[in-house]
Amino acid sequence: MASGGSLEWRVNVGDGATEVLRPEGSFVGRMVMGVKGFVWGLFVKGWMFLEKAWGIANSEPKKAVHGLKVGLALSIVSVFYYMRPLYEGIGGNAMWAIMTVVVTFESTVGATFYKCVNRVIGTSLAGGLGIGVHWVAAESGDRFEPIVLGISLFLLASATTFSRFIPSIKTKFDYGAMIFILTFCLVSISSYRVDKLFELAHTRLTTIAIGTSLCIIVSMLFCPMWAGSQLHSLVFRNLDKLADGLDGCLSEYFKNVDDPEMENEDQECHDSKAQSYKCVLNSKASEESMANFARWEPAHGRFGFRHPWKKYLEVGVAMRKCAYCIEALHDCLNSEIKAPNSLKLLLLEPCKALSTSSSKVLKELSIVIKTMKKSTKIDLEVSDMNIAVQELQAAIASFPSTQTANEEHEAATIPPLMELLPLATLVSLLIETASRIEHVVNAVETLANVANFDSEEEKKRSCLDNNDHHVAMRVFPEA
Amino acid sequence: MASGGSLEWRVNVGDGATEVLRPEGSFVGRMVMGVKGFVWGLFVKGWMFLEKAWGIANSEPKKAVHGLKVGLALSIVSVFYYMRPLYEGIGGNAMWAIMTVVVTFESTVGATFYKCVNRVIGTSLAGGLGIGVHWVAAESGDRFEPIVLGISLFLLASATTFSRFIPSIKTKFDYGAMIFILTFCLVSISSYRVDKLFELAHTRLTTIAIGTSLCIIVSMLFCPMWAGSQLHSLVFRNLDKLADGLDGCLSEYFKNVDDPEMENEDQECHDSKAQSYKCVLNSKASEESMANFARWEPAHGRFGFRHPWKKYLEVGVAMRKCAYCIEALHDCLNSEIKAPNSLKLLLLEPCKALSTSSSKVLKELSIVIKTMKKSTKIDLEVSDMNIAVQELQAAIASFPSTQTANEEHEAATIPPLMELLPLATLVSLLIETASRIEHVVNAVETLANVANFDSEEEKKRSCLDNNDHHVAMRVFPEA
Repeated sequence: MASGGSLEWRVNVGDGATEVLRPEGSFVGRMVMGVKGFVWGLFVKGWMFLEKAWGIANSEPKKAVHGLKVGLALSIVSVFYYMRPLYEGIGGNAMWAIMTVVVTFESTVGATFYKCVNRVIGTSLAGGLGIGVHWVAAESGDRFEPIVLGISLFLLASATTFSRFIPSIKTKFDYGAMIFILTFCLVSISSYRVDKLFELAHTRLTTIAIGTSLCIIVSMLFCPMWAGSQLHSLVFRNLDKLADGLDGCLSEYFKNVDDPEMENEDQECHDSKAQSYKCVLNSKASEESMANFARWEPAHGRFGFRHPWKKYLEVGVAMRKCAYCIEALHDCLNSEIKAPNSLKLLLLEPCKALSTSSSKVLKELSIVIKTMKKSTKIDLEVSDMNIAVQELQAAIASFPSTQTANEEHEAATIPPLMELLPLATLVSLLIETASRIEHVVNAVETLANVANFDSEEEKKRSCLDNNDHHVAMRVFPEA
Repeated sequence: MASGGSLEWRVNVGDGATEVLRPEGSFVGRMVMGVKGFVWGLFVKGWMFLEKAWGIANSEPKKAVHGLKVGLALSIVSVFYYMRPLYEGIGGNAMWAIMTVVVTFESTVGATFYKCVNRVIGTSLAGGLGIGVHWVAAESGDRFEPIVLGISLFLLASATTFSRFIPSIKTKFDYGAMIFILTFCLVSISSYRVDKLFELAHTRLTTIAIGTSLCIIVSMLFCPMWAGSQLHSLVFRNLDKLADGLDGCLSEYFKNVDDPEMENEDQECHDSKAQSYKCVLNSKASEESMANFARWEPAHGRFGFRHPWKKYLEVGVAMRKCAYCIEALHDCLNSEIKAPNSLKLLLLEPCKALSTSSSKVLKELSIVIKTMKKSTKIDLEVSDMNIAVQELQAAIASFPSTQTANEEHEAATIPPLMELLPLATLVSLLIETASRIEHVVNAVETLANVANFDSEEEKKRSCLDNNDHHVAMRVFPEA
């Protein structure tokens, strides 16, 4: 700090360079410098923010489109408001239409539906109940009116707020419960008389209906983003990522064994692909919220109204279990203890065979979900995987005896268990991964059956069944 | 179905019993039965719902308390409204105070603060900007007014909606951005003149200020629930759960080796404890939202205003990595291939020693966080754990040779690698878990340093330092 007796202040100007600030005599000069630095810093920060935003808009244009859709919906509502002569009935209540659009317009159709339906149900229920309580309070005389209102308000608000913690309410009606409390308070506290309240309720419901239907129309007509499709593609992409993660893990481990001169560039690309499975570990929350919203969506694309979205969650659970195993595999292979290459070479073939067949199964599952068609190959590939497991087990079983056969009576040259440790871990974790992949296969099969995925085999079989049925009908006509 | 030529319908009455419905002639009779069944079903469902709610309220009374707090806050606001002569200025705008309470009152103090601050900032900014745009539009003449308003509305709404996708905005100002759009729309579209708008803005800000301050007061005065404290206890509880999971895993595996007559009851209790680590796997989302809200909280209890909540997230990440390893360990031990008990017995001691010392470290870390005091024992326990790792490695290293020494030249009796597989996996995963626990130790130490946890050692040292400093001052008085 103190260099040659004088102080020197350096300012970091944001782009990494530093500027030396010479001590200046005037207070004003320093102020100007300070303000300049502040403004410059603000400018740099703002620029970086814009760059980041531009990056997001470029990589995920759907997000930018959502922004434009909200702008569009609000502009349409404001047109409603400007054409007041046309909609005299709404008048000053147009506020509620705007508020509805701002609050209920979500990025996916399902979430928008969820909020709209909740808003309408919550408002109607609370409006009816509020008018009822208001009437009871008015009938009970001036003295008891505030007491009746206060107690009912306190009890209903407490109970409804608490109900938002109950899982079944939370997933389906969390927003509706909030709107219920809000509307009930507004109605029950309002000093209007009951007949005036009916009028108010009518206009409010009309404006909310306009707002919600506008939201639903805009979100469905212009580049609709379906929570269901997002969940669908999330699941099959995660399956691909798992397959890449498993492959990457193995080729990382064996890279110096069979081909020491692998290209670095290729390796780096491979690494980022191999690490992508990590996002499977943390996809639970987004999967659940998407499945929750997808249930509100009407039939769209290849998905019917009652598409079994919950089954996707089961596939997700099975996938995550698989990912935990791959995670452990990944880190165990990078542990301190290294197996010698000579030993690695012995297991190279069966290990690679197992990982290849495992990732083939995962990729086939991904295709099953992506195309929504049952696979004819999957059974074959699963049995391939099981054969690879058995071959690996056989390779392991013959491992020390081959050694001893080669070097008779020289028991000391048997590799010490210490060096075998990473290999043994690799083998068990690979086998464990394969068994977890079978759970994924089962989950996907359940999904395929429940969701009636197309299948060429089944078409043929159902044809045959129909024929059988006709025969049966003819043989037992009384059935 | 067809028994003796007549049809018989059975109805499931909800409590498991079935009732035989005799075919009845009259349509009315059937209707009555149907309605009865429906009402009974509704009653049973409602009862089950209430039972569930009661269970939640009993196990987590804080949730019920939150409900009561919301009821209280709303009752207070309604009192404001009833005493209108006192607050004539608010008048019909009291609605905004109620709305503020309903919308911003969250279960933790931090979340309430977040929403209140966001609401005030969003409303003020949008109000100012809205009045500005309104003025510009009014100045530009009747013809251009709707165009200016429409374009500015469209652009601002789109940009703000899009900005909610940018991570830094999303974590801190998501709600504020929504309120910004809402207020901007209401102000810019309103047909009031600018001077009237100022009045409106003033009353709206006053009501929102009343609502937000009421929320903050009620949430802080009556049984406050701090997001920070919740995060704190979540983290140290998860450390305990990890320790239990690790212990449970090992004793499960070795249970028939050393003590075949373990009591079943004890085992069951142990099992549920051993499975509890699974919730560590999925705690990421709740940890992050709690840390996000905790930043808004004022100093409370043992936590200062700038308590390093983000460091808890780092501990959480390290813990989850540990949990993945324990998950893999858990399932590998339940795999098909079983090691013979004779081999297990050889590794029983070192494995148990390692798991015991590992879980001791985890429990000590839990105590460090719980008491917010640096531990004097932790270094010792970590080195114990490392010694246990080395001992386990030594046990493994001497494993095949001991066998051959016992049974000279009988190489065939060396256990085949196949039987060693689960043991080798156990060993590597245990060692891997130990190395991941060291990462947790580092994360906790960073937290302890940044958060200035108390430490007896440091107190002594700082005493000494002060003394040294005094000496230095005396020796170099010019310093």
